[in-house]
Amino acid sequence: MKILVVGASGTIGKEIVSALEGDNEIIQAGRNGADVSVDITSPDSIREMYAEIGKVDAVINASGKANFSAVSELTPEVNEKGIQSKLKGQINLVLLGMEHVNDNGSFTLTTGVMMDDPIPMGASAAMANGGVKAFVKAASIEMPRGIRINSVSPNIVQESWDRLGDFFAGFEPVPASRVARAFVKSVNGKQTGNNYEVY
Amino acid sequence: MKILVVGASGTIGKEIVSALEGDNEIIQAGRNGADVSVDITSPDSIREMYAEIGKVDAVINASGKANFSAVSELTPEVNEKGIQSKLKGQINLVLLGMEHVNDNGSFTLTTGVMMDDPIPMGASAAMANGGVKAFVKAASIEMPRGIRINSVSPNIVQESWDRLGDFFAGFEPVPASRVARAFVKSVNGKQTGNNYEVY
Ligand SMILES: NC(=O)c1ccc[n+]([C@@H]2O[C@H](COP(=O)([O-])OP(=O)(O)OC[C@H]3O[C@@H](n4cnc5c(N)ncnc54)[C@H](OP(=O)(O)O)[C@@H]3O)[C@@H](O)[C@H]2O)c1
Ligand SMILES: NC(=O)c1ccc[n+]([C@@H]2O[C@H](COP(=O)([O-])OP(=O)(O)OC[C@H]3O[C@@H](n4cnc5c(N)ncnc54)[C@H](OP(=O)(O)O)[C@@H]3O)[C@@H](O)[C@H]2O)c1
Repeated sequence: MKILVVGASGTIGKEIVSALEGDNEIIQAGRNGADVSVDITSPDSIREMYAEIGKVDAVINASGKANFSAVSELTPEVNEKGIQSKLKGQINLVLLGMEHVNDNGSFTLTTGVMMDDPIPMGASAAMANGGVKAFVKAASIEMPRGIRINSVSPNIVQESWDRLGDFFAGFEPVPASRVARAFVKSVNGKQTGNNYEVY
Repeated sequence: MKILVVGASGTIGKEIVSALEGDNEIIQAGRNGADVSVDITSPDSIREMYAEIGKVDAVINASGKANFSAVSELTPEVNEKGIQSKLKGQINLVLLGMEHVNDNGSFTLTTGVMMDDPIPMGASAAMANGGVKAFVKAASIEMPRGIRINSVSPNIVQESWDRLGDFFAGFEPVPASRVARAFVKSVNGKQTGNNYEVY
């Protein structure tokens, strides 16, 4: 399969690439992507990326940001990062990529544990995650040409624990390589509309 | 209590007002609100409304729109209505209203059954609903001064069946007055972070 991985250089993206590269042709994307560059916060940039790469069998996204902020300090402006990147960025990869995915292909997006097991400072990211999860479930029932769509919800990963562990008191981090397995399941399996929880 | 109801003139809003008006002072809001006007898609308009009404004990929102569109016809532009109105409009009512709600007050937003039981053409609305639900759950753990936050997820309501029933084949519509009971539960009860499903 020809598989586009947006966020391929990231903590989770790297593990997705190594889990899939043996059997597939991987196109690595990101703002400084090894194969193609894309900024998911810009619809034009997404369009240009798809025009450049042609047709693929699977699109995986492992990028997307949201600001951490206490809800009493969260402003519409601070919330906007999560809206533009983690929420709309991911959804636009689907909407603008539909024509570029082969019959019976797939999209796999990324959500996160914070929507299910909330942490302080996490409301904006949770919002984006919840929006993506619900979009995936609803979109799955009417995707054209047998195209499937799922999301993967990672727990905090071990590799990010030094940087983010303070936000996740008491959580049990999982290895990024375990999160990558769920992406393999989504791409190679037959489920659609699922949010794979790797908790 | 002094209760702001945004969307007070709507199908569901009207029933919320009649369920609460006996025991409380209701401020009815909407773009053509009986007491105060507000367009939830504009942060400035939300700010002006709160400046005009002063402090309240509860904020209820029963407004918010999203476009119906098949996912293969959904564009970033068509998706924007749901982002600006049902998602950001509702969340901004909370973010910008925090200082205007008295200690131990509450916010109650509106989601909808489509995120849990998807229908064709419903992906954009489901996205908004899922974002609001997750935001409510995450925000609830760090709301200041004992302020609670919940959402109500209505099934398709009987009063909207003639207009919307074709989208909801096989659903069992519920009376808007039953949906209004969940808003009363949110305002007068003690739960927080809950999405009351009225299915
Ligand atoms: N790490 C965790 O513990 C964890 C837990 C739960 C959920 N998640 C979610 O999983 C996803 C990946 O997390 P991560 O920790 O692996 O991230 P990361 O290490 O920061 O990597 C982010 C990746 O995305 C790319 N990227 C960043 N902004 C981009 C943009 N606007 N457009 C296109 N590509 C962009 C980066 O490459 P460039 O810099 O070249 O753009 C990089 O490849 C995120 O959505 C995150 O919220 C992570
Ligand atoms: N009806 C259903 O079966 C059903 C089912 C599930 C969920 N819902 C959700 O419940 C909510 C209310 O639905 P409804 O059927 O009662 O709606 P509705 O009858 O169309 O009423 C909408 C109300 O919101 C106000 N409004 C519209 N746009 C606004 C804006 N930008 N800013 C401020 N106020 C605005 C309207 O007054 P003005 O025109 O004066 O602004 C009106 O009071 C919506 O979020 C809807 O998605 C409805």
